[in-house]
Amino acid sequence: MKNKRTGHEIHLKKHPVGSVKVEDFELVNMEVPDLKEEGDFLVRIIWMSVDPFLRIYMTKGTKHAPPFELNKSLEGGCIGKVIESKSSKFKVGDYVKANFGWRKYWIGKETQSEEKSISKVNSTLGPLRSFLGLLGITGITAYVGLFKICNLREKQDTVFVSSAAGGVGSVVCQLAKIKGCQVVGSCGSDEKARWLVDELGVDYAFNYRKIGLDNISEKLSRVCPNGIDLYFDNVGGKHLEAAINNMNTFGRIALCGTTSQYNDDLKISSGNLDQHINKSPSLEPSNLSLAVSHRLKLQGFIWSDHFDILSEFNSNMSKWISEDRIKLKEYIVEGLENAPKAFVSLFKGDTMGRALVRFD
Amino acid sequence: MKNKRTGHEIHLKKHPVGSVKVEDFELVNMEVPDLKEEGDFLVRIIWMSVDPFLRIYMTKGTKHAPPFELNKSLEGGCIGKVIESKSSKFKVGDYVKANFGWRKYWIGKETQSEEKSISKVNSTLGPLRSFLGLLGITGITAYVGLFKICNLREKQDTVFVSSAAGGVGSVVCQLAKIKGCQVVGSCGSDEKARWLVDELGVDYAFNYRKIGLDNISEKLSRVCPNGIDLYFDNVGGKHLEAAINNMNTFGRIALCGTTSQYNDDLKISSGNLDQHINKSPSLEPSNLSLAVSHRLKLQGFIWSDHFDILSEFNSNMSKWISEDRIKLKEYIVEGLENAPKAFVSLFKGDTMGRALVRFD
Repeated sequence: MKNKRTGHEIHLKKHPVGSVKVEDFELVNMEVPDLKEEGDFLVRIIWMSVDPFLRIYMTKGTKHAPPFELNKSLEGGCIGKVIESKSSKFKVGDYVKANFGWRKYWIGKETQSEEKSISKVNSTLGPLRSFLGLLGITGITAYVGLFKICNLREKQDTVFVSSAAGGVGSVVCQLAKIKGCQVVGSCGSDEKARWLVDELGVDYAFNYRKIGLDNISEKLSRVCPNGIDLYFDNVGGKHLEAAINNMNTFGRIALCGTTSQYNDDLKISSGNLDQHINKSPSLEPSNLSLAVSHRLKLQGFIWSDHFDILSEFNSNMSKWISEDRIKLKEYIVEGLENAPKAFVSLFKGDTMGRALVRFD
Repeated sequence: MKNKRTGHEIHLKKHPVGSVKVEDFELVNMEVPDLKEEGDFLVRIIWMSVDPFLRIYMTKGTKHAPPFELNKSLEGGCIGKVIESKSSKFKVGDYVKANFGWRKYWIGKETQSEEKSISKVNSTLGPLRSFLGLLGITGITAYVGLFKICNLREKQDTVFVSSAAGGVGSVVCQLAKIKGCQVVGSCGSDEKARWLVDELGVDYAFNYRKIGLDNISEKLSRVCPNGIDLYFDNVGGKHLEAAINNMNTFGRIALCGTTSQYNDDLKISSGNLDQHINKSPSLEPSNLSLAVSHRLKLQGFIWSDHFDILSEFNSNMSKWISEDRIKLKEYIVEGLENAPKAFVSLFKGDTMGRALVRFD
């Protein structure tokens, strides 16, 4: 009889109260069961993302969703390799993407692969970790909003992006620049604003915290003297109102809402997030009547309604990645044992970009 | 030398203060000048509409537009016949539509016809007065919003209409019923609600004043248990918010705004209108974040951006008129001298429907 395989998992030890702490987590070594049924396959995780929105599910009794159970593995986006298999679909050597992060090994079932969002990834399209970012939800959300919802007009549109230094926002900025558009971004620090201009080639970026939410409209009217054609909204509220004030006739607004904020705005404080948890962020423009006179279109969307563009997206995005024309700010943490620290730092640190854990 | 032709006009004698009164107007007999230049043509008015939004231009010093001048003819939508002409485009016997109402005769200039929105009407499409309603802006606004902006799905959509007994609203209701949809309307009186159901075949109508603006959402959730697919918004504010609360995934909202209210909601009180004049009605839904999760599209529109559907519209609408499948509530006043009384009654009476003046 061979030795049982073991691997670490991160458990939630207690529901965080207030700011999340490293002590709320526990690293546990678990025995990996054998594959029993036909269709089962064993995956070893290679990359995992550390996403701030998980905080919502760590709090006991939120009405958004059932919380993570104590003393069980957390879950999150991950990329892994099939190392044992009784499945003809997920074979040894295949790379797969799933939502089973925070553990070294997980067992999938072929019959549940759709329900559990397990999918094979084509590792020739880009680096493996990009399937958690540029080739993942972040990238496709930006792509769908810009091209499918708002029909970006190459070399023509003036594009405004809120939360522009976040994951989705920064991809939106780069895609619009690739298409020769004028791009203006709003973000939450001077450092991010510099990064947008110096590294991503955004035409103008400003720190909305410095100018104040009530002055965004006036700022936009100065930096977009010919008006805004397309607004990619990641935040709603005063940003949306300011954009509406400055939209050109037939302007298009992609409402990506606040969902992306949880993923993207990594400088979100736990205070903000608590507010998010208790009350959805305000999305109340007071000037929607301008949508009639200016014939604006506002459209909410979710990337997963648009599988029809997946192959176009994969082909374009992997091309731009290989040509080094698009990037995602990432910071890489070595080893699962450091994931809790990385998670906690999201809520207080000055880290910028997407946190990824590389497994040993 | 032939006798000079004379005809009556209605002048604004003084800018109304508070409620508009008959004494604010004056009937004046004027001499009609001869046609002098090539391209000139003389029109005798046959029908004219009496529109509440004119009230805005009667008040001195509104910032919306320059007010009507005192001791000059008022202006408004009209249909007339060319009775003398030096134009090869507008010939004797042609019917024309323009914005020169409130007088028996007016002289047009061929070169200014576009600028002044003078157009010939094809009198075979429907009764002449319908060019001020079903075949005019009212009808085409409903048609564009429903079919072009919101892509009404025949026999499938549940449609909600605010200001449903108004001109645009009532046409929206009837068009949606012609296409076999479920239709729910909101209006401002029990009498209108009965009319919508009994006369127009609307499936359910309610008096929002009776249930209260804050209870529209709950009402909709009861009368549309399967949700709303398409909302035709004529009012914004609480109606828009209530609709958003009840929209199905991928719901579509046509933002027709408050413009149509001036034309349509003929029970508008001068108090309400004063409010309109001083402050645009509120269009502030507090629940726009649902537009993301439910992937809603909200789109403002103006009929005149959609000339491409004019011939389709004319052909369908004239067919439905001739088949008696669509109608517009009208009340007809005989003689220009009675127009001021009709106008004043718009702001206090219980008149329902579009006021039209038939000329002697």
